[in-house]
Amino acid sequence: MPGDALIVLDPYPRPLGLIFSPEDLRRLEALGRVERHEGSPAPGDWIDARLPEAAALVGQTALPKARLDKAAKLLAVCNVEGNFLPNIDYEECHRRNIPVLGCGPAFSPAVAEMALGMALALARGIVPHDAAFRRGEETYSRFSNDGCWLLRGKPLGLIGCGNVGRALLPLLKPFGGEILVHDPWILDAALRELGVVPLGLDELLSRARVVFVLSAATTENRKGLGQEHFARMAPGSALVLVGRADTVDFDALLDAAERGHLRVAVDVFPEEPLPKDHRARRTPNTILSGHRAGGLGETYRAIGKMVVDDLELVLRGQPPQHMQRARLEIVTKRRGKPEKQ
Amino acid sequence: MPGDALIVLDPYPRPLGLIFSPEDLRRLEALGRVERHEGSPAPGDWIDARLPEAAALVGQTALPKARLDKAAKLLAVCNVEGNFLPNIDYEECHRRNIPVLGCGPAFSPAVAEMALGMALALARGIVPHDAAFRRGEETYSRFSNDGCWLLRGKPLGLIGCGNVGRALLPLLKPFGGEILVHDPWILDAALRELGVVPLGLDELLSRARVVFVLSAATTENRKGLGQEHFARMAPGSALVLVGRADTVDFDALLDAAERGHLRVAVDVFPEEPLPKDHRARRTPNTILSGHRAGGLGETYRAIGKMVVDDLELVLRGQPPQHMQRARLEIVTKRRGKPEKQ
Amino acid sequence: MPGDALIVLDPYPRPLGLIFSPEDLRRLEALGRVERHEGSPAPGDWIDARLPEAAALVGQTALPKARLDKAAKLLAVCNVEGNFLPNIDYEECHRRNIPVLGCGPAFSPAVAEMALGMALALARGIVPHDAAFRRGEETYSRFSNDGCWLLRGKPLGLIGCGNVGRALLPLLKPFGGEILVHDPWILDAALRELGVVPLGLDELLSRARVVFVLSAATTENRKGLGQEHFARMAPGSALVLVGRADTVDFDALLDAAERGHLRVAVDVFPEEPLPKDHRARRTPNTILSGHRAGGLGETYRAIGKMVVDDLELVLRGQPPQHMQRARLEIVTKRRGKPEKQ
Amino acid sequence: MPGDALIVLDPYPRPLGLIFSPEDLRRLEALGRVERHEGSPAPGDWIDARLPEAAALVGQTALPKARLDKAAKLLAVCNVEGNFLPNIDYEECHRRNIPVLGCGPAFSPAVAEMALGMALALARGIVPHDAAFRRGEETYSRFSNDGCWLLRGKPLGLIGCGNVGRALLPLLKPFGGEILVHDPWILDAALRELGVVPLGLDELLSRARVVFVLSAATTENRKGLGQEHFARMAPGSALVLVGRADTVDFDALLDAAERGHLRVAVDVFPEEPLPKDHRARRTPNTILSGHRAGGLGETYRAIGKMVVDDLELVLRGQPPQHMQRARLEIVTKRRGKPEKQ
Repeated sequence: MPGDALIVLDPYPRPLGLIFSPEDLRRLEALGRVERHEGSPAPGDWIDARLPEAAALVGQTALPKARLDKAAKLLAVCNVEGNFLPNIDYEECHRRNIPVLGCGPAFSPAVAEMALGMALALARGIVPHDAAFRRGEETYSRFSNDGCWLLRGKPLGLIGCGNVGRALLPLLKPFGGEILVHDPWILDAALRELGVVPLGLDELLSRARVVFVLSAATTENRKGLGQEHFARMAPGSALVLVGRADTVDFDALLDAAERGHLRVAVDVFPEEPLPKDHRARRTPNTILSGHRAGGLGETYRAIGKMVVDDLELVLRGQPPQHMQRARLEIVTKRRGKPEKQ
Repeated sequence: MPGDALIVLDPYPRPLGLIFSPEDLRRLEALGRVERHEGSPAPGDWIDARLPEAAALVGQTALPKARLDKAAKLLAVCNVEGNFLPNIDYEECHRRNIPVLGCGPAFSPAVAEMALGMALALARGIVPHDAAFRRGEETYSRFSNDGCWLLRGKPLGLIGCGNVGRALLPLLKPFGGEILVHDPWILDAALRELGVVPLGLDELLSRARVVFVLSAATTENRKGLGQEHFARMAPGSALVLVGRADTVDFDALLDAAERGHLRVAVDVFPEEPLPKDHRARRTPNTILSGHRAGGLGETYRAIGKMVVDDLELVLRGQPPQHMQRARLEIVTKRRGKPEKQ
Repeated sequence: MPGDALIVLDPYPRPLGLIFSPEDLRRLEALGRVERHEGSPAPGDWIDARLPEAAALVGQTALPKARLDKAAKLLAVCNVEGNFLPNIDYEECHRRNIPVLGCGPAFSPAVAEMALGMALALARGIVPHDAAFRRGEETYSRFSNDGCWLLRGKPLGLIGCGNVGRALLPLLKPFGGEILVHDPWILDAALRELGVVPLGLDELLSRARVVFVLSAATTENRKGLGQEHFARMAPGSALVLVGRADTVDFDALLDAAERGHLRVAVDVFPEEPLPKDHRARRTPNTILSGHRAGGLGETYRAIGKMVVDDLELVLRGQPPQHMQRARLEIVTKRRGKPEKQ
Repeated sequence: MPGDALIVLDPYPRPLGLIFSPEDLRRLEALGRVERHEGSPAPGDWIDARLPEAAALVGQTALPKARLDKAAKLLAVCNVEGNFLPNIDYEECHRRNIPVLGCGPAFSPAVAEMALGMALALARGIVPHDAAFRRGEETYSRFSNDGCWLLRGKPLGLIGCGNVGRALLPLLKPFGGEILVHDPWILDAALRELGVVPLGLDELLSRARVVFVLSAATTENRKGLGQEHFARMAPGSALVLVGRADTVDFDALLDAAERGHLRVAVDVFPEEPLPKDHRARRTPNTILSGHRAGGLGETYRAIGKMVVDDLELVLRGQPPQHMQRARLEIVTKRRGKPEKQ
């Protein structure tokens, strides 16, 4: 056991106790000498003093080339926040074969369950019917189900098929309909291997009964989903937005909900917190949720477990297995063009 | 084609246009001579006049022995309401080999999707969080997820595993946890074939993170789920009631929700409509739904399709395949005892 | 416990010890008073003496109306051989609500596994390549795989979709190709529910890469599969015959194998044992198996377990759940016409 | 389209026409200027002359640092043979961010199907029974199934869970038994995510009814499976060897088959071709196959398709998606220790 490896924890903005269970913290301490800074980003000199001995760095610490030059023993960097920030020199890390590892996969199961829950709630009117019931205005049986429908056998569409999409697919398959996917960054052949139908954006929108907008950072440069896209969707269809708010024209989306063209669930907003007087709060045919699809206690603990599992491997000289490596092609500016529009 | 068979339609309380699509009505009319009474139960003499020639009867018409004695050509009775009513002499039908067919399976997919939607909404607080958002009181990210949890990997429990349970199982399996079933009317070996864990009621309640109460008429003679049962469930667990309201002590259930011990979704009530001043309307930690889990447009059309499909078979001398035969052991008084308590 | 019920065992040609494990025999004896005749069919007077008290009869005993008239307490008949024989008055049993129960489902898992094993062995040339290896004539790597192919992604066809077909479907689904089914006795809508494509016989033959011939007794009146059918199949395709030999023109099938048009596995033969000089023994591109797809030790024990499980239920007044009821429409002469050709 | 990129093909020992369909070759030629050497490894000076302009290299060409120094425009190396050879300076490739891509995943589906076919053939005695039939010595029905068993519900074991294991898992899951995996290179948590039970080698051997030996190069340094391991397996169990022959003590394996303790299928041999007089050719309870589990026409074409798909991406600046990157930790000498023994 490499009990003398130095593991530096600089997890801000995540509290240590949020991500590490007592057991995982014990496992971490069994891997080496642990030094930690909590409650704020670690000061530069605190980091600098530890870099020459650090075997692993857990957190979102800035790592320009000058710092990497000092970190001769560094074997891995574990991000515990969820996004790859631009404060690391990824090319230099690559050259030194220091993997920068992300915890994105920890959030996916939670986001996938929320997305399905929202889709079912939209299709069945669970939220407005409960509100009507509390006002004493509920209707019963078939008189209460106007405009409601089943997911069963219906085409379901995913825009973006990264970690969240892959966690969502097995939950959608038993509904038995075709699963349509638009993701310009994934080969059609690879999508077909997943048992889904690769499709252009317009055709997906016109065919899917539920559209899950899951697109992540790598697609943010595409022009967003706007009024003309929503118009393609069949009246009464559902749209679930759990990716990035900036992938849609938010006002056009609220318009579509307001006039009853779509049923819409939103977990991410152009501004957070949303202004108190924002029209979204009064828009019917919507479900509103405060950026909470991923951030559950279980999720944060999963991050800690991933970190310890992978550091055990890395300190033994094996490749990490849980966390996701930052890929140069994706985190750097030199981005390519997607395969299809 | 047996174009001379008489098919008698007496579907009240179901409007004909609700259950038969224009296409299915055409298919029905291609099977024989169709006579119909709509808007109320068919008068006795109207029925009596048609019985001697009737090959099939679609509806909930009373069929005592005296009537069956006149119905020499009757090949099948198709209930389109959903319950086997006591107005039929089932033993005499059996002796004459006239199957009495039920449309219960048409409702199951819709109830199963609703049950899952409710479970996800409870686990993630979708309904109260949306209400808070509209009041401008939402919280964000991890501060909004207190007491929320994933279905993934958790034991999920079913009380009753008939048509609805069997439609729900494939939707639950991808969440990856054990599925626990209590159904005293089904052999343990048959449950294991379904890939679930047969379990006594008390153990199921103490282990399952969601309890789906799906029990149907055949189990109504069991003593209901009451305060001591809810107390066995782990704090913060969810209960989804989509079976029969009389299988639970409703007040005890609301107590458990009110003090935050359980999160509860209710689709069936001891009285419907529920009195305007009923405490349920003010009970927190609940989702209320007006007996609407099954009765969607798609469901009613599925009934009509079932009826026509099966009458095609019956008029050709083949067994029906979609609808469910009333089984003597179940519809008559001579009920047995369940295998296990 | 109804310890005074009389259970009569007349299982010939099945030895009792083949179908009942010691434990299941103990369970049976706990259900009532057990009397048995083994080694030959029970003599008429032995049966007649026990009929008035018999609550259950396990075996293939003849039950004409005259005998049923004496069997006032009889609640169920459990066939342990596998076929519904014509020595029972099924209509009288029906009138008296005495279910005649079959053990066919016990054989299905074994037949399904054998069918898949044969299909894979045909597609990959496992049998002839092993023989070549033993002769010292094997080839290696890609030079050994002429005419071999994967099941993955290929259309697979089932002729007949009863118990065996339903046991085979889940084994075939992960190969990812379309599953084509021809079964004129099952509604297209019911087949689609199983996730398969209902198809006419000719189209199935021309599209499927493996054709599983599973058709059972109910389809024996169709004209068999003959030369023109085999000609429709793509060269090099596989046919697996595990249903009834009389559903195919056996000589034409051997012709197709002999000239290399098909790869064929045969578990059932027009005569059994097959004459020593039958040409099948010298036909290349075949796998030969002596009616052994279903009859394993595990299968026979499953029959005994089914019988005891269901008698427990029947003696308590509940419907049986494992065994399959003889359906009047199927076991009697008054057969209908299949829906589609 | 980067029509001016130079793509160098040096595919020996694979013929070009084996791996590239005419359509894939056209797609490749649309990506850039293609230069090829076939029929033997490309001569050193032929390669050297093209390196300065080469954007992609398809083949097993030696790439020491001196050559990489000349290959300023090289973006990717695509191995089309299946093994990462030691003739490449992987560390230098990594430093230059030139992915070395392997085609291993192309073989996995074929190997997985063969492994399942062999397991079923062993469990059911398909091969020896066919041979007996041809000799006129077959038995029928239950008298022919001594020692045969079903996979259904039985624990099935995998030693090694790389590409082949992952292709095999979905084929095994519908048999419904536990799937036990021993792979010291994969985290238990990652195995559990796959729905399998991680297990020590000895316990796996004693519990599994079929043991699939799939271990690949990375485990070759473990001591092999020998007599004491085979002795742990239950009598009559099956072992399928499709990984590397040097992971087992081959003589001890034949001994176990010869005395009837195991049923064994072997696709890989310590020497290939196997000497004509090798005892394996006379050993009963074995199925012999000449290293043919992976090398089908479909497999080779899949390699070509992978290469073109991924080169399309690489030339656009995106990461490859089909082929597998050589990972420094695995291809270089600096190997770690596996997590568990």
